[in-house]
Order: sequence, then structure tokens, then C-alpha cells
Amino acid sequence: MKDLRNIAVVGLGLLGGSIALAVRQRARGTTVIGYSHRASTRVKARELGVADQVSDDLTGCVSNADLVILATPLFTFDRYFAKLSELVPGACVITEVGSAKLLPHRWAESRLDRRIRYVGSHPVVGSEKRGLEFARDDLFDQACCVLTTTHNTDHSAVEALKEFWSTLGCIMQIMSPAEHDRVFANVSHLPHVIAAGLVNASDRGDMKFASKGFLDSTRIASGPATIWTDVLLANRENIARGINRVIVELSKLQRAIKNGKREEIRQLLDDAGKRRAALVKYKIRKKELFS
Amino acid sequence: MKDLRNIAVVGLGLLGGSIALAVRQRARGTTVIGYSHRASTRVKARELGVADQVSDDLTGCVSNADLVILATPLFTFDRYFAKLSELVPGACVITEVGSAKLLPHRWAESRLDRRIRYVGSHPVVGSEKRGLEFARDDLFDQACCVLTTTHNTDHSAVEALKEFWSTLGCIMQIMSPAEHDRVFANVSHLPHVIAAGLVNASDRGDMKFASKGFLDSTRIASGPATIWTDVLLANRENIARGINRVIVELSKLQRAIKNGKREEIRQLLDDAGKRRAALVKYKIRKKELFS
Repeated sequence: MKDLRNIAVVGLGLLGGSIALAVRQRARGTTVIGYSHRASTRVKARELGVADQVSDDLTGCVSNADLVILATPLFTFDRYFAKLSELVPGACVITEVGSAKLLPHRWAESRLDRRIRYVGSHPVVGSEKRGLEFARDDLFDQACCVLTTTHNTDHSAVEALKEFWSTLGCIMQIMSPAEHDRVFANVSHLPHVIAAGLVNASDRGDMKFASKGFLDSTRIASGPATIWTDVLLANRENIARGINRVIVELSKLQRAIKNGKREEIRQLLDDAGKRRAALVKYKIRKKELFS
Repeated sequence: MKDLRNIAVVGLGLLGGSIALAVRQRARGTTVIGYSHRASTRVKARELGVADQVSDDLTGCVSNADLVILATPLFTFDRYFAKLSELVPGACVITEVGSAKLLPHRWAESRLDRRIRYVGSHPVVGSEKRGLEFARDDLFDQACCVLTTTHNTDHSAVEALKEFWSTLGCIMQIMSPAEHDRVFANVSHLPHVIAAGLVNASDRGDMKFASKGFLDSTRIASGPATIWTDVLLANRENIARGINRVIVELSKLQRAIKNGKREEIRQLLDDAGKRRAALVKYKIRKKELFS
């Protein structure tokens, strides 16, 4: 990676830690500095050797950076952009790894000096785990990574980030922030809400009889509540619309069940089965899933 | 198994085939006969050696049976009970492996001669697969099996079935049919409806960006539509009520998201996460799940 020699990762949770580890492992010739404001995280980060340097001095971490990656909670980006705008070199590329993109783009637009090149990044590597102790250098292997761009986005920064994430193992996609937020509301944020709703609607005593089906279909409800709260708040309209669509589908099934409409129920279940089978087939063809 | 020497399995799909295989493997001193009305299934059953005998002669299969297990589609039980009532020996135990129990108990009550001892069985071994080719002799290992009984149920038949399913590896539970149908509507049938609703509410193009979370939370939507249609029809009131409860929870989350109520969203997600964590802990303690 010729253009990105000095990389700063701000925030050393599961994602930030994995990025730093993967850079050390795969991006030879680069230096990665990890920033955390929390002393215990810095101690752990040094023990695990996730970065070449670990520090709580933001200025020192980013003042020589070619690339700064924000891996802090989504609603801190606004504040970090304001700070970083003063601290980073003029040619610096800034990105963040939030799961919603319209708000970060809006914040970047208003906070970052025009010289600084911002692009949104969303490496799609969800986990119900959180924290540096679960960081892995192979987290990005074969993972989809969406870059979000607008008509203002610098082309060379997009190219540099494509190379960066590809080096870490990602398969790249480009979207507008609006398209990104619509798509990920539907395939990621909405399933999270549905899983939480299903668990909250379930009686604790009954749940003792739950089998693999229930456990799998609610696994994502175990994700960290604070991180997900941010995501849901950052993508409100799309998610609210998605919930409406699911309620419409559930009401359709409910009506057919109540009225004993065998053929209608079978058709709705069959549609779902076929749509999912087509998805699985696509994922296998794309080598994102193995048969 | 001293009381159950001759066992007939009617219907050789995934479940029936697995029962026959497991009996051959684990219940020494017993003979298992498999019945299928479909020639291709009988050929496959003989190839796979799932039973000591495979036949399309129902009379011959059951006339000497100590235990008949119905593993055919749920809405065929009524008809089979009527037939079997004429064919089986007086002391015979009849059970079925349907996923809903109020209807089978009602049918047994009206169709079976009083001498015949009926108990409901629900080995909880859901799979999105179907068909004899997926039959496995270890399918019941550590699986929960619910026997359903009423005040009319013969005590010795319950004891015999407890021993039978335990020999196959099951962990036994006893419930009334009404309790069974309420509990399994909530932890099994409802999640199926929710998964189907989520898939049907999802755009095919968007789904290409789905990751493991979406795939896991919709896996059960790939279950066989005809079998699940029967289950939903056989447990209509409980499932309709469950859908209402889920819609209430989703609307609660939707309102909080729309109004940007951070603390309320966080609390709802946190509740779901904690309830699921408690469930996982319980399952690990019960050795139904491994950490």
C-alpha cells in the first residue's frame, strides 16, 4: 500500500483491534498506531500486540497519519471529526467503520476541513461479541466491505481505501450513503429488531423448551445493546419502514392461519423458502458461504 | 425394552427413517418394520437398511405390533387412527410424532378403540431438511421429547414410551396437549412464522448484502412448506396470539426508534440480550448446548 504508510486506528474494540491486528499481519511496510482513551484497553492492546504503538495521545497518534480509521461508537464520530480536522496532515484520508452512513457523511461534511479526504467504510463483519479480547486478524477474510461516496468524494481516497480493505481480505462494494442505509436497514438492522422483538415476546418458562431453531433465529439479539442502539438511532426512518413491512407480512400470515387458508399459508411459506434458497445459492456462488 | 418387541414405523421421512435407524442401532432385541406407501421411498429405505423389513402392506406391518409410531403428515393421523384401530392387537401402544398435539389427541379419542393405548410424542429435533436421505440414527441424542397425556392416558403406555424414547437418546418431558401446543407455538411455530415474514419483507436485491446474522435468523424459513403449513393449521389460536405479541413488541421498538428514545431502545435491546443470555446459560447447564 504505497499511499498509506502510517495508519491510526482510533478505538480498540473488536473492530478497531481486528483492523490493527490485520494491518500488522498483512500490510507489510506500514506502521499502525492504536488509540484508546481507556487505560485497561491500552494495557490489553499492548499485551495482545495489536498495534506497533498504543497510546492515549490522540494528537501524537494522528499527526503523521496517512489514514485515520475511526472505530469508536457511531455517535462519537461528529466530535472526533471536529478534533481530527485540526490534528491530521492535509493529505490525510479519514474513514470510520459505522454501520450507518448518512449521519457520518453529514458530520464529515460539516466538521472536516476541505483538504481532508473522507470516505465511509462498512466492513460487514457483525458479531454478537464485543471487546478487544475477541479481535482477530482474519476477521475481514472474504467479508464484504462497502465504501460510501458522494459527488464530493475524492477519487484517489476511494482507490486507496479499496486497496487497504482488499489487503485485509475484504470484497469491495461502493454505494451512496442513502443506498447503504436503506440496504443495511433491511438486511442487518431490521433482523436485529425482529430478533429482539421475538425474544421479548417469549415467556421465560416456555423458552426452556426452545431448540436450535429459536436459538439461531435470535442469536443476533445477543449483540451489544449500546452499539445497536446507536445504529438504530442513526437509521431511524429506514428501520421504521422495515418494521412496517414485516408487520404487514406477519399480519398476512396471521390472517391466513386464523382463517385456516391452507393454500395461502403454504404459498407464503413456500415463497419464503424459495427466496432464502436463492439467497443461499447466491452466497455459495460468491464463495461467501460453503455448501 | 421388555414390553415393546415389535415396532412399526408408519411413514419413512426424515423422522420416521431416523426412528427406525435408531431402533435398529440401539434397541437390541426389537424388530422394526417400516411402512411407506411410496415405492421410491421403500427402495431407498431398503438400500439404507433403515428397518428390518420395509413394506407397503399396512395390515402386515402393524398386526403384530407392540408399538406403532405414526411419522406421516399431521393431518393424516385422523385417517390412520381409524384404520389402525381395526388392525392393531388389543394391547398395542400407538403414538405419533406431530409438532402439535391437541388435534391428534382429539382424533385418537374419537377414532381409536378403547383397548388401544394412545400417547402423544414430540421428539424436538427440527431440521430444515426433509426426506429419508437425511435420516440419522443419532438424531435423538440429547433431544428433548415431550409426551402428551390426559386423564384418560394409560400409565403403563407412558412408562413404555419413556423407556422407548430414552433408549433412542431423548430427555423426557410430560405435558398436557394444551400446554404442549401453547409452549411450542411460542418457541417453535412462532419463530418459523417470524422468519418467513422477515424473508418475505426483504427485497431480493438487498438480500445479496445479507450476512451471517440474516442467514441464521431466517434459517428455519427453509423448512418444508407443506409440513409447516400443517403445523400452523393445527395450532391456529396459539400462533395467532403469538404473532400479536410479537407485533406489540415490534411496535414498541418502532415507536422508540421513531421518537429517538435512546434509553428506551437500549433497555428493550438489553432486556432481549439478557433474556437470551439466561436461556443460553440454562441450555449449557442442561447440556443441550456447549459453551
